[in-house]
Order: sequence, then structure tokens, then C-alpha cells
Amino acid sequence: MDRLGTVAIVGVGLIGGSIGLALRELGLAERVMGVGRGEANLAEAVRLGAIDTATTDLASGVAEADVVVVCTPVTEIAEAVRFAAEHGRQEVLVTDAGSTKLRIVEAVERSPAAARVFVGSHPIAGSERKGVTHARSDLFEGRSCVLTPTGRTPDDRLQRARSFWVRLGCRVIELGPAEHDDVLALTSHLPHAVAAALAATVPAEALPMAAGAYRDGTRVAGSDTALWAGIFAENKGPTLRALALFQDQIDAFRRAMEADDVGDIRDWWEGAKGRRGRFDAQHLPTVPDD
Amino acid sequence: MDRLGTVAIVGVGLIGGSIGLALRELGLAERVMGVGRGEANLAEAVRLGAIDTATTDLASGVAEADVVVVCTPVTEIAEAVRFAAEHGRQEVLVTDAGSTKLRIVEAVERSPAAARVFVGSHPIAGSERKGVTHARSDLFEGRSCVLTPTGRTPDDRLQRARSFWVRLGCRVIELGPAEHDDVLALTSHLPHAVAAALAATVPAEALPMAAGAYRDGTRVAGSDTALWAGIFAENKGPTLRALALFQDQIDAFRRAMEADDVGDIRDWWEGAKGRRGRFDAQHLPTVPDD
Repeated sequence: MDRLGTVAIVGVGLIGGSIGLALRELGLAERVMGVGRGEANLAEAVRLGAIDTATTDLASGVAEADVVVVCTPVTEIAEAVRFAAEHGRQEVLVTDAGSTKLRIVEAVERSPAAARVFVGSHPIAGSERKGVTHARSDLFEGRSCVLTPTGRTPDDRLQRARSFWVRLGCRVIELGPAEHDDVLALTSHLPHAVAAALAATVPAEALPMAAGAYRDGTRVAGSDTALWAGIFAENKGPTLRALALFQDQIDAFRRAMEADDVGDIRDWWEGAKGRRGRFDAQHLPTVPDD
Repeated sequence: MDRLGTVAIVGVGLIGGSIGLALRELGLAERVMGVGRGEANLAEAVRLGAIDTATTDLASGVAEADVVVVCTPVTEIAEAVRFAAEHGRQEVLVTDAGSTKLRIVEAVERSPAAARVFVGSHPIAGSERKGVTHARSDLFEGRSCVLTPTGRTPDDRLQRARSFWVRLGCRVIELGPAEHDDVLALTSHLPHAVAAALAATVPAEALPMAAGAYRDGTRVAGSDTALWAGIFAENKGPTLRALALFQDQIDAFRRAMEADDVGDIRDWWEGAKGRRGRFDAQHLPTVPDD
């Protein structure tokens, strides 16, 4: 495989920083350029070895890049992609790492120049921790990365995007953007909303008696507020549909409880336990944190 | 502190086995007697060093005991306690390890002989794993154990129960039985129900895309069905009240989503994140699994 030239990472936090660390540790790129708004954060990213050089100017940051990876919050991705497409090289591949896809892909493809160079990506990796200080070069190893090409995605860009994530250690899956958002609403966005609802339900004075079920059930409620408000807002329909399916399960449990129907409670629990067992059988021993 | 004589453990699974391992490892008792229905399980408990000797006969198992700890599923505790009180020594202390308390304490205290020797206990430790093979001598170290004495609980038995759990490493808390059940419905029973509802919501075909938020949010859905059906049935009222509070949080989230109110989504998330942060500040670095 050819070594990449310059890779520009727009938004050097946990995900962007981990991409940079992996590229540099594996020697996959000649140069890793970090692009961001905060100079202190960029200096920290250089110090940690996540990027070679840095700039706060997006136009100059992407000017020489072979690959641009936009790792900003989801609400800012489409604009950064379009800007990178307009200011980048003819041959550039632009991709992203956003947790939602349909709105981003639609907004990007309103620009023919951007549609020509873009492939939507979502590496399913992360954690409730935030920032380049938590970046890890092995964050993507063995993780799934969903690519969401459309009828307008050029084949060569799709192949290059696939190769990019495979080199970082990902197992690549292709889904349509809408299908991606439906699936991720169930597997990730709903679990985050449920974790937050559970966290908020337990009053502060009861917390000394809380233990592992609360701890694990609410872990991701510690995630970044702006990041998750953005994801929920971008993925409204699928998240509300996932929430309705969850509500059906809660209602089934409540009805069985109200009816004192221990058989129904058992059956309901068995179904849930079976689903969870299927997840374990697929994923053990390692699953990413997010 | 005096060494205990014979301690009888009724129900030698994860909790009972861990009590036995701790008593024997710390040299706190002269003899640990295991009482159960399954001979193979009792033989395994002896092999693992969780008990010294075993019997399937409850009457002879408790006959010489200074302390009897009933570690059966919650629906069987009250009967075993009453039986142990009737067949045990005059001086015996009988306690339990059940996750619910009000119904158990009420049923026990219908027997004056049992009320005279019993202190309700709930060591808040465990995991989604089941059975003596997962028992650990350090399961109770640093964990909270709630004692639920009533106006009828003799002072000397309360002191002996307190001493028993403290020697196993617990921090002892006293609550009324009803108060215990209200608090635990929020901190444990609700999180278990929510984990199961979440586990069941995500369809099997989406599981390959599930990651850490689903993994942690559903961990305890792998817990034993009979155990949890029993806990829910025993603690109906408090669990339904906790569920109603959780529903309020889910409804608030849904309303904010439906209204496209990103400010409300942020505020809601911030509140949840703050509560979770408070838990972390109290509990880090170690929290039991259950």
C-alpha cells in the first residue's frame, strides 16, 4: 500500500487525535496536519505526538492534503467538508468521523464539488472522555467503521476511504446514510439517552447506595453535552423511533409488574437476557467504550 | 473480637460462597457449614474452600450455628429464617443477604421466635454472574451493607449483625425496611429493569454495530432470571414508583426532541451528567458490580 502524503485532521480531540497518533505510530502518512480553533489544544496535540504541525486556518490546513478527515462535532461537519472540498487539491479525499450521517451527506452533496470528493464515515469508537489528552493510537483497532456512500460517491474515493480506515485497524461496513442513522439510533443514541435518564432519576441522597448497575448503566451520561445535543438534534427521527421501541419494552415490564404476573416478568427478562447474550457472543472479549 | 463458632450459610451461590470464602480466609469462624438443595453444588463449594462441611438438611445445618446467614433467592428467605429460628440454638443470630427487605422482615416478624433472633441485612455486592464458582473472598470489601432493624429487633442481635458484616469488610448503614426498599428500587432495581428494556430494544441484526454504550448499559440484563423476577415481585410498589420517576425523565427528553429544542436537550443532559459526576466523586475508584 502506498504511504499517504499529508493528512489533515480538522478537529483534534479524542477521535481526531487518535487518528493522528495511529497514522504517525504506524508510519502511514508523510505528514499529519492538525486544524483547529484553539491554539493551546493544537500545541498539546503536537506535544502528545498526535500531529506533526498545526494551524488555525482551515484553508491553509487543507491546501496540500491528500486526505482530509473532519472530526468536529456533527453540526459543523458538512460546512467543514464543503470548505475543504473548495480549498483542497483536485485529488483530495474528504471524509469525516461523525456519529450521524444523513443530514451531513445531504448537506455535503448540495455542493457538486464536495460530492465529488466526499465519503461519509463513522468509526464506531470513542468514550465518554473528551479531548486529545485521552487519544490512543489503538482506538480503532478491531472496531467497526461504517462508510455511507451514495449514488454520487466516486468509486475511487470510496476505495481510498475504505483503505484509510482499514489501515487504522477498522473492520469496514457499508450502509446507506439513512440506514446508518436508524441503526446507530438504536445501538448508540438510544443507549446514551437512556443512560442520561437513569442518571437523572436517582436522587443525590440515594447515590451512596448505588453500585455497579447504576455505575455501568449511566457511564455514558458523563459524555460531552454539546457533542450529544448535536447528535440528538441531527438524528431526531431515528432517535424518536428508537425511543418508542424502548417505551414498548418499559410498558411491557410495567404492565407485568402491575398485574403481579411473575411469569410475564420472567419471560420479559429472559428475552432481554437472550439478546444481551447474543451481543456477548458476537463481541467478547473486546468492545469499544462508545 | 471473638472468633465466631459455627456459621451456617443457607444457599451457597455467589453471595453465600463469598461469605464463606471471606470467613475462612480471614479465620473469623471455627466452622463454616453450607446448607443447600444441590449436592453437586455443595461439593463444589467445599472443593473451592467456600465451606468446611455441607448438608442438604436445613434443620441439622442450623442446629449448632452461632450465626445463620440466609442467602437464598428473596422469595425463599423468610421461610428459611423462620425455620432456622425454630430449629436453631437459643443464642443464634439469623440474618440474610436479600436485595429486598420489607416483605421479608414483615413475614419473619409474624413469628415471635424469629423476630427475637433476626436482623435483616443487604450487602450491596454481587454481579450479573451467578453461582459459587464466581465467589470471591473480597466481594464485600469496602461495600455498603444495609441493616434494617425494627422496633422488635433486640439490641444484642443488631450489634452482632453489625460486627459480622464489618468483619467481612463492609461499611454498615441502618435504614428502615421500607426505606431500604425505596432507595434500592431507585439505585438497583430500576437500573436492572432499564438495562433489560434497553437490551431487548436493539434488534439482533443491529448488534454488530453496538458498542460500549450498549455493552455497559445492558450488562446487568445478563443477571439470573429467577433472582430478578423474585426481587421485582417482592418490591412492586417502590419499583413502580422508581419507574414513574424514570418515565418523567424519558418524557422530558422526548418533549425536547419533538420540539427541536436544543437548549432543552442540553439542559436535560447537563442535569444528568451532573448527577453522574456526583456519583463518580463519591465512589471512585471502586464500585461493586451490582
